[in-house]
Amino acid sequence: MSNGTPLIRKLVIVGVGLIGGSLALALRRAGAVSEIIGVGRSKVNLNKAIEAGAIDRVSSDLIDVAQDVDMIVLATPVNTINLYLHELSARPPKDVIITDVGSVKQDIMLTARQCLNEQYRNFVPGHPIAGRERPGIDAASPGLFENHSVVLTPDEGTDSRAIDLVRKMWLVTGASIILMDQQEHDAVLSLTSHLPHVLAYVMMNYLANDANAERCYQMTAGGFYDFTRTASSDPEMWKDISIMNRDNLMKDIRQFQVRLEDIAMMIQNSDDASLERLFQDARQARSLVMEKRNPGE
Amino acid sequence: MSNGTPLIRKLVIVGVGLIGGSLALALRRAGAVSEIIGVGRSKVNLNKAIEAGAIDRVSSDLIDVAQDVDMIVLATPVNTINLYLHELSARPPKDVIITDVGSVKQDIMLTARQCLNEQYRNFVPGHPIAGRERPGIDAASPGLFENHSVVLTPDEGTDSRAIDLVRKMWLVTGASIILMDQQEHDAVLSLTSHLPHVLAYVMMNYLANDANAERCYQMTAGGFYDFTRTASSDPEMWKDISIMNRDNLMKDIRQFQVRLEDIAMMIQNSDDASLERLFQDARQARSLVMEKRNPGE
Repeated sequence: MSNGTPLIRKLVIVGVGLIGGSLALALRRAGAVSEIIGVGRSKVNLNKAIEAGAIDRVSSDLIDVAQDVDMIVLATPVNTINLYLHELSARPPKDVIITDVGSVKQDIMLTARQCLNEQYRNFVPGHPIAGRERPGIDAASPGLFENHSVVLTPDEGTDSRAIDLVRKMWLVTGASIILMDQQEHDAVLSLTSHLPHVLAYVMMNYLANDANAERCYQMTAGGFYDFTRTASSDPEMWKDISIMNRDNLMKDIRQFQVRLEDIAMMIQNSDDASLERLFQDARQARSLVMEKRNPGE
Repeated sequence: MSNGTPLIRKLVIVGVGLIGGSLALALRRAGAVSEIIGVGRSKVNLNKAIEAGAIDRVSSDLIDVAQDVDMIVLATPVNTINLYLHELSARPPKDVIITDVGSVKQDIMLTARQCLNEQYRNFVPGHPIAGRERPGIDAASPGLFENHSVVLTPDEGTDSRAIDLVRKMWLVTGASIILMDQQEHDAVLSLTSHLPHVLAYVMMNYLANDANAERCYQMTAGGFYDFTRTASSDPEMWKDISIMNRDNLMKDIRQFQVRLEDIAMMIQNSDDASLERLFQDARQARSLVMEKRNPGE
C-alpha cells in the first residue's frame, strides 16, 4: 500500500476522538492516506490529535475544506453528525464521498438525504461495531478496528464507487465489512446495544437510590461491574441514540418487560423447572455469543 | 504461620470446586492447615483436587469424618448446602465449627438452625464475594479471594470463638471481612448480584428468540458481551438462589420494572432533558462503583 498511490489523497475527519482518531492512526500506519485534516469543536483535542500523529492539520471551516478533498468521515456523536450534515447543506461538496460512524442509521440517512440533495448519492452510511467507554483521542489506537465488523447501509441509489472506497478504507484498518439494510441495522443495534445500555443505566440508578446504597457499593463484585459497564458511557450521546432509534428501542423495552414479567412469575411461584430451563436456554445462547464474538475484543 | 502451629488442624471441605478448591489452595499456600479432607459427589473432581494439591484425601462419609475435625466448610451451590446440613442433622458433630459460602443467608441459616440443634452455635454463615463463570477445580486459584470481601452473618447466639476462627481463615486467603446482618446481606445481594443475573438471563433469552437472532449474534460487541456475562453462570445454582431469595428479588424486580417504565416514558416522549439527567446520575454512580471496587477484580 505505502509503495504505490495512497488509497485516499485528502481525508477530512470530523471529530477526532476515539473512533475518528483510531481510524486516522490505522490509515496512517498503512500508508493509505496522503493528508488528514481534522475538524472539531475542541481545539485542545485537535492539538492532541496533531501531537499523536493522527492528523496533519486542522481546519475550522468544514464547508471550505470540504470542497477539495476525496472523503469526509463524520466521526462525532450521532446528534453532532446531523448538525454537520446541516452545515454541509449550505454547499454540499461535489463528488466528495461522505461517510459516518453513527450507531443509528435511518435518522442520519434521512438527514443526509435532506441536506446533501443530489450529492446524497455519495453518502455511504457506516457504523464500526467497536468502542470503549473511555472516549477521546487519548484512548485512540490504530488497532481498535482489527477483527471488528463495520456495517455499511448504503441506499439504493448510493454510488458504487463511493461504497467501494469506504469499504476499502475500513478493510485497511483490519475490520471486516457487513452490508446491511438500514432498517435491519437499527433493529439489530437496538437489541444488541441500545437496550443493554438503557438497562445498565436503569440498574445503576436503582442501586444509587436504594436505602442500602452504601452497602451495595461495598458489595459489588465482578458480575455487577461488567453488567453496568455501559452505564459509564457518555450520557449526552446515549440520550440522542435512544431518542433517534426510539421506535425500535420502545419495541425492545416492551418485549423485554414481557419476558421479565414471565420470569418474575416463575420466581414468585417457585417454578424451578421453568426457571432452570429458561436459564439453561440463556446460557446456551450466551455460549453462541462467545463463539461468534470478534476475537479482538 | 508455617513455622508455628497451623491455624486449623483438620479441615473438611464439602464441594471442592472453584470456591472450595481456591480456599484449600490459599490455606495450603499459607501453611494454615495440617490436613484437608475433600467431600463431594464427583469422584473425578475430587481426584483432580488431590492431583492439584488442594486436598490430602477424600471421604465419602461426611457424618463419619465430621466428628473428628476442627472445621467443615460447605462450599457447594446453595441447595446442596442445605442437603448437606440435613445429612449432618442425623448426628451434628460436637464442637466442630461449620461454615458455608452460600450467596443467600437467611434460608441457609434457617436450615442450619433446624438441622444442627444446639450445635447451631458453632455455625458461622459466610459468603465470599468472589467468583467466575467458569466453575470447578480447574478454575481454582489460591489468589481468588485476595482483595475481595467475605461477608459473615453470625446469629446472636453464635459462638465468638467460632466466628473468630472463620474470620482468621478468610484473612489468611487475603480477603477482608465484613460482618453483616443476615437480612441486610440478602437484600444487598439481591440488588447487586441476583437481579443483574436475572436481567442478563432475560436479555440473553430475548436475543436468542428474536427474528433477527442470527444477525444479532453477528453484531454483538464488547458491551453486550460484558452485560450478559453472568448469563453464563450455572442455571441450576441460580435457579435455587433466585427462589431462596425470592422475597428480596421480587421486590427488586418490581422496583426495577417501575424505573424501566419511567425511562420508557422519557424515550417515548423524547424527553431528552430528563433522559440525559438520568444517564448522568447513573454514570456518576458507576464511577463510585469503579472507585470502591475491589482492586483484585
